[in-house]
Amino acid sequence: MPVYRAPVENVLFLLQDVLGFERYAHLPGFEDASPDMLSAILEEGGRICEDILLPLNMSGDREGCRRAPDGTVTAPKGFKAAYDAFAQGGWIGLAAPAEYGGQGLPYTLAAAINEFATSANMAFSLYPGLTRGAQAALIEHASEEQKALYLPKMISGEWAGTMNLTEPHCGTDLGLIKSRAVRKADGSFTITGQKIFISAGEHDLASNIIHLVLARIEGAPAGTKGISLFIVPKYLPDGQGNAGARNGVSCGSIEHKMGIHGNATCVMNYDDATGWLVGEENRGLNAMFVMMNEARLGVAVQGLSMSEIAYQNAVAYARERLQGRALTGAKATDKPADPIIVHPDVRRMLLEMRAFNEPARALILWAALQSDIAHRSPDADERLAADDALSLLIPVLKGVLTDVGFDNTVKAQQVFGGHGYVGEWGMEQYVRDARIAMIYEGANGIQALDLVGRKLPKDNGRAVMAWFKQVGQAIKEAEGEAELAPLASGLKGGFDHLQKATMWLMQNALAKPDNAGAASNDYMHLFGLVALGHMWLAIAKAALARKHADASQAAEMDAKLIAGRFYMERIMPEAGARYARIATGAETIMAMPAEAF
Amino acid sequence: MPVYRAPVENVLFLLQDVLGFERYAHLPGFEDASPDMLSAILEEGGRICEDILLPLNMSGDREGCRRAPDGTVTAPKGFKAAYDAFAQGGWIGLAAPAEYGGQGLPYTLAAAINEFATSANMAFSLYPGLTRGAQAALIEHASEEQKALYLPKMISGEWAGTMNLTEPHCGTDLGLIKSRAVRKADGSFTITGQKIFISAGEHDLASNIIHLVLARIEGAPAGTKGISLFIVPKYLPDGQGNAGARNGVSCGSIEHKMGIHGNATCVMNYDDATGWLVGEENRGLNAMFVMMNEARLGVAVQGLSMSEIAYQNAVAYARERLQGRALTGAKATDKPADPIIVHPDVRRMLLEMRAFNEPARALILWAALQSDIAHRSPDADERLAADDALSLLIPVLKGVLTDVGFDNTVKAQQVFGGHGYVGEWGMEQYVRDARIAMIYEGANGIQALDLVGRKLPKDNGRAVMAWFKQVGQAIKEAEGEAELAPLASGLKGGFDHLQKATMWLMQNALAKPDNAGAASNDYMHLFGLVALGHMWLAIAKAALARKHADASQAAEMDAKLIAGRFYMERIMPEAGARYARIATGAETIMAMPAEAF
Repeated sequence: MPVYRAPVENVLFLLQDVLGFERYAHLPGFEDASPDMLSAILEEGGRICEDILLPLNMSGDREGCRRAPDGTVTAPKGFKAAYDAFAQGGWIGLAAPAEYGGQGLPYTLAAAINEFATSANMAFSLYPGLTRGAQAALIEHASEEQKALYLPKMISGEWAGTMNLTEPHCGTDLGLIKSRAVRKADGSFTITGQKIFISAGEHDLASNIIHLVLARIEGAPAGTKGISLFIVPKYLPDGQGNAGARNGVSCGSIEHKMGIHGNATCVMNYDDATGWLVGEENRGLNAMFVMMNEARLGVAVQGLSMSEIAYQNAVAYARERLQGRALTGAKATDKPADPIIVHPDVRRMLLEMRAFNEPARALILWAALQSDIAHRSPDADERLAADDALSLLIPVLKGVLTDVGFDNTVKAQQVFGGHGYVGEWGMEQYVRDARIAMIYEGANGIQALDLVGRKLPKDNGRAVMAWFKQVGQAIKEAEGEAELAPLASGLKGGFDHLQKATMWLMQNALAKPDNAGAASNDYMHLFGLVALGHMWLAIAKAALARKHADASQAAEMDAKLIAGRFYMERIMPEAGARYARIATGAETIMAMPAEAF
Repeated sequence: MPVYRAPVENVLFLLQDVLGFERYAHLPGFEDASPDMLSAILEEGGRICEDILLPLNMSGDREGCRRAPDGTVTAPKGFKAAYDAFAQGGWIGLAAPAEYGGQGLPYTLAAAINEFATSANMAFSLYPGLTRGAQAALIEHASEEQKALYLPKMISGEWAGTMNLTEPHCGTDLGLIKSRAVRKADGSFTITGQKIFISAGEHDLASNIIHLVLARIEGAPAGTKGISLFIVPKYLPDGQGNAGARNGVSCGSIEHKMGIHGNATCVMNYDDATGWLVGEENRGLNAMFVMMNEARLGVAVQGLSMSEIAYQNAVAYARERLQGRALTGAKATDKPADPIIVHPDVRRMLLEMRAFNEPARALILWAALQSDIAHRSPDADERLAADDALSLLIPVLKGVLTDVGFDNTVKAQQVFGGHGYVGEWGMEQYVRDARIAMIYEGANGIQALDLVGRKLPKDNGRAVMAWFKQVGQAIKEAEGEAELAPLASGLKGGFDHLQKATMWLMQNALAKPDNAGAASNDYMHLFGLVALGHMWLAIAKAALARKHADASQAAEMDAKLIAGRFYMERIMPEAGARYARIATGAETIMAMPAEAF
């Protein structure tokens, strides 16, 4: 049985010591997030994930979802009761507006709880996750009437939600969408078409499912400018706002996937279904883009979540598994062999995970805080700066955290040897589950293109210049402090490469866009190396302060400092290789004729 | 349905143009391997893999193996007929000695066919693979009587074989083995114990299964020096050499694994089973080590095989899937979108695989050729040099080819987007299947330790110095040729780092073994980068010669040269990062207290 302890203390340390959470007490919702309250909510959230979601993770994977011939889908055993408990605890609507029944707490807090829930049971956490995504779109774009009708039931968890974008012939390229919408006399629409890869598309956890569907109104312009967003409920609301007659939407089949078996990934068929336009006609993609930051941040969290639980289990195993002797002579002389944690290469694998997880968590919380500021600050400049920073970093977080998170699950599995390959210990499930996060919500190659093609040049580079300035200042300040100087020097090495790479893109990608495409993946990862390193500097600074203030915490803080040093010594050197690749340009990549591959 | 074409032409090019196969016509078995014969055998071998093994790959994965309550195991549908065809075609005994019914052909040829079979169906290919492994141990260590009794039936495929090493509490550390052997009056032994993770431990493909089992004879010394090797047949041979009475060995359960579902991974219970000692008492580990080179090379092949079939399918998909437009403007203007192979980042992923597969194949064939030379050359110096080179490179091939091969299956899956995550296209199976190769036959961390701890210092570095000399000479020769100089320069960059890293190990690892352990993984991968780069130089040289000799092959040869350039520009830069990590030493890694992870 896999182990998992929600990293509550680490979240509190990052929020309070590293990110200065208390500075935002003036924002709406933050006034209820006093240190005591914060701690209590995180503890309680961690507990439900450990006690209720975790025990269903392996069984959910093995059982999977079942579709009956009538198109209904049953989630794995125990999921319904867990969903009810999760909903009743108020966890789905933690950060949702109080006027619709939410708790109105900071989104930052919801992001932390989301990490715990995903570690404990990624397949499960997608159900409330998709509902929250649909909520977010409605909050931004729906009419007051639509909000009043749908939001309270979705926030309470009584109704669930989904996002329907992909079709068989189009995933990334939504301009190719074929699903059709025909206007009816009463202002509603008839929706026809097929959607695929719809997570949580059909299930038995909620009494109704509110599908948000992209479709093309007849006569709309071709391409992305002719796509509209519709609400298509599984059961049509009756006059009283309750689920009424069945709508013409059904699950045609569920996919057999590599992982996240506990979540139903559906082919959804819309046969003359009734739908209602959300927001403006032909502006459906826009409506999607607005909520993309949070959706992508949610997927970035999955990378961290899988890395964290995989790490915790690998550490536990490495402490217990006896095999071989330390290279420097036997350590556990009373035992037939030493625990494998004595071996440098096992420690290397563990430290690679550890040195990622903490700054990745810091980045997630930082990004969620930017989202809170961007939505809730009374100061327009502050809102703009937060939105700039968040938009810039979102593709980095989504792409890098899911890539590295997946790699870390593979590493954690390796610590188990053959026992990692069999189902018994649960390690191979993390690998299979984590893999999807690199693909959905914009495959990581798309994130990289979003970064180099849109986010960097946006507003003449305003966001990237502001962020670079922050990183540069942090380095400068740390260089003067003896205990931080080695970390600052490591970060500076990576940052220099990032700046050179950015300059290279400015000089070489405008005239030759293929140079941007060929550099994009390495640039995104180089950016991620520096962003994580930047967080390490902040973490180390806070750790030193705590250590000096309270000697009883010295051992715990020293462990952070060791992990930070490891990051600079052994992870940051990748920056040089990333830069070297970027600077070779696109020539060789484009030289190969398509038929010669 | 996945596509696969056995890379017969490439094997011929590598054998003939790059490795100078014809120079070895004087070795036994090679005289039958004329160019025409070589080509005919490879074509025929490729065909059986494409036509018979490939169609059973996905179905075998979905169906898996089934164990009946009586302990018998049924392989997936179609496997038995395929096994019969494979055996009857003589493919199991292709390189086995003619005196026992084998074809006595070069092992190099068998390695090439093994690549094809593994690409087509990795789970299937383990059945003959394990049989060949057991054969090899018997050929080296069994008595003449044992050889005469077992080998002909194993070479013909009538009987299968297995290797039984691992026990629940010991995988890497075989000194902990508990299985017991008690000598009986007739010279045979009673074997008792439990073995786990036994590939092909029980199945219905052959009429008998010959288990080779490591166990401890009562009174034997503790640790690795008290382990002996035994033959334990499923059915005891009767007086006529046929399968007779059932022996006390049975399959207790089969594992639920991440992949290779078509192969039965068994818990094997030995309850007073009858066994016969192979070779000398207490020298069982030695007997295993002798055959380890070929077994590990066989696993290295799996890394290449999975990368190759994943690549072929990713290329096919990237040419057909229409999504988005080229960054430089629409290419397929008659279609709603361009094929995704126009995108630089898709090409990057494809080229990363391509730039690995060809030199990896060259290394495999080179290593197999060294094995042939080491076993068959009449010249003692030549045998020694070949054995030195093979032993040195084996951990590099096993560790690097399976690590990179796995990464490549992940990349190929990424090219498919969401379609790579569902079972339909077969891409996720390659990821799941390829994963085991990093673990079994010595986890890759063990390979890295074998390289730095045993192979490097062996005979005062004789092997590594000889190999470095070869690489250095190849660089020097190529530097003088204009068309090769850029590749030589790329290789030189990596080679310089490898030499510096080797020097660093000599200076820092003797006094502090943890420095060797902490460096081992990076050192192994750095070695692999240079070894693959070395092969690229040889491939490029041969490609230029062909191109200049025959203009009709220019396009094909140019594609090789582009892939080689890509390797040096975009893969070799990793060498710098690997060296930087090595040179940081073990201090930080060892500083973290075990309880602080």
